[in-house]
Amino acid sequence: MKEEDQKDYRWIEERYWDFFATRFRVKKVLFSDKSPFQRVEVVDTAGHGRMLLNDGLVMISERDEFIYHEMIAHVPLFLHPNPRRVLVIGGGDGGTVREVLKHRSVEHCRLVEIDAMVVDTCKKFIPQTASALDDPRVTVSVADGVEFVASTGETFDVAIVDSTDPIGPAQPLFGSEFYGNVKRILTERGIVVSQGESAFLASETQESLIRILKEHFEQVNLYNYTNMTYPAGLWSFTFASKGLRPVSDFDPERVRQSGIRFRYYNPSVHAASFALPQFMRDAFGRWLAEA
Amino acid sequence: MKEEDQKDYRWIEERYWDFFATRFRVKKVLFSDKSPFQRVEVVDTAGHGRMLLNDGLVMISERDEFIYHEMIAHVPLFLHPNPRRVLVIGGGDGGTVREVLKHRSVEHCRLVEIDAMVVDTCKKFIPQTASALDDPRVTVSVADGVEFVASTGETFDVAIVDSTDPIGPAQPLFGSEFYGNVKRILTERGIVVSQGESAFLASETQESLIRILKEHFEQVNLYNYTNMTYPAGLWSFTFASKGLRPVSDFDPERVRQSGIRFRYYNPSVHAASFALPQFMRDAFGRWLAEA
Repeated sequence: MKEEDQKDYRWIEERYWDFFATRFRVKKVLFSDKSPFQRVEVVDTAGHGRMLLNDGLVMISERDEFIYHEMIAHVPLFLHPNPRRVLVIGGGDGGTVREVLKHRSVEHCRLVEIDAMVVDTCKKFIPQTASALDDPRVTVSVADGVEFVASTGETFDVAIVDSTDPIGPAQPLFGSEFYGNVKRILTERGIVVSQGESAFLASETQESLIRILKEHFEQVNLYNYTNMTYPAGLWSFTFASKGLRPVSDFDPERVRQSGIRFRYYNPSVHAASFALPQFMRDAFGRWLAEA
Repeated sequence: MKEEDQKDYRWIEERYWDFFATRFRVKKVLFSDKSPFQRVEVVDTAGHGRMLLNDGLVMISERDEFIYHEMIAHVPLFLHPNPRRVLVIGGGDGGTVREVLKHRSVEHCRLVEIDAMVVDTCKKFIPQTASALDDPRVTVSVADGVEFVASTGETFDVAIVDSTDPIGPAQPLFGSEFYGNVKRILTERGIVVSQGESAFLASETQESLIRILKEHFEQVNLYNYTNMTYPAGLWSFTFASKGLRPVSDFDPERVRQSGIRFRYYNPSVHAASFALPQFMRDAFGRWLAEA
């Protein structure tokens, strides 16, 4: 890169607990505005492609979004015997919906995103994820996910809570009332998975989320993934179901027969992601069911 | 924390490829000097305890060193049927040796560290890892690991290459001649594991290391771990053996019978760590044996 080009670069920084930070070099700010819920930004970075930030926190980057989206979508969808109706709460970038739609069994995917600006901005600047939202099997509802699950008459085979951290608009998505309603709208063999934070940075949030899930579901588990852009490496999803066990009821053959091409997920990774490091087992094992 | 305390704090930063950086808040610099090989520093951080830096790169932190050290040591030592003699190359902080010594079968552990300043500094400032080096079963040799394996008459059941990145003094530890000699000094069922870099940040180094191992060993594998302080989350160790397969020859019962307490490792994590994300399988699968 030429020296004069470099001058225009700046760094964006995420800080955690005031002792740790990650920084990404930005080539250009493509969009920045304040919605009723949060500041929404899209920046073009030097190393990670385009990046969506909500209130200054990295949501997705073009370079590594495949990891998060494959792991949040394919784990429940390859476990459920016939996922036809899927609910995605949050996830206005469209990446989770893109992975959901790769499953031929899916007839309808409803995205409930509270912030229209996230959807519109990603459609304009990050088609890599957001173009999935134009698929005829998708309905995008700009609505509060908490209110949606409390009032809808629809039911779903799989619900995916693709939320930001439990600050700002996502806070009620980490509550007990919400998960009571999610259970109510899940079909007989229903599954719900949720963005489950990091054991390194937010183990109290993880514990709270697990205990809330446990109020409503017998089968509760955690599974892990690692991407490039989330701080401190180790991040989790929560898994809860009306009975399906995420590893012992999983049939790897279904994955092979699907013909879907993955970049992170595969049948071995599916099972391995439920093998928790000992410190997570010590912290949360009492609430978790056999996987 | 009071405002006036904060003023004394500063941040140390690691940069990667000029597009990504991690930062740690430092309370106090405890030691900083230049050895013939590198700058060696120990800092007390606000969030990760004491931290060892070589040439400005984070080697270990008191908060998360257990992850790296448990995974580099217990995977080969629980696989080998009777590890009595263990060689550690690099690893002057002592953390790997500490985990090795937890195995009752181990009679002798030789640490070959090129930089006396690393050993002395860790003994003084990071006893959490370095106190293991005072154990009577340990011999510390301040010597070049490459020369040591080329000339020694000793043999070892397990060799652990606990090296820094392949820049500076560690460069020859990523070479073919070195691994040819490692093979020569391994006993009949010998195993060598090595710090194997990150697929996100250094996949070319990983490929080179795998191909070099493959020149000397039929059984070559990669396994992954995630800690808090290494950048971009996903890091690997290489595994090579004279025939033992890291998962199918592994007996989880041995772990339970050992009575060793772990914070990251456990039998499920042992097996799961060899389940590579699809992009790593696509990149390296052709050289890797069945685990």
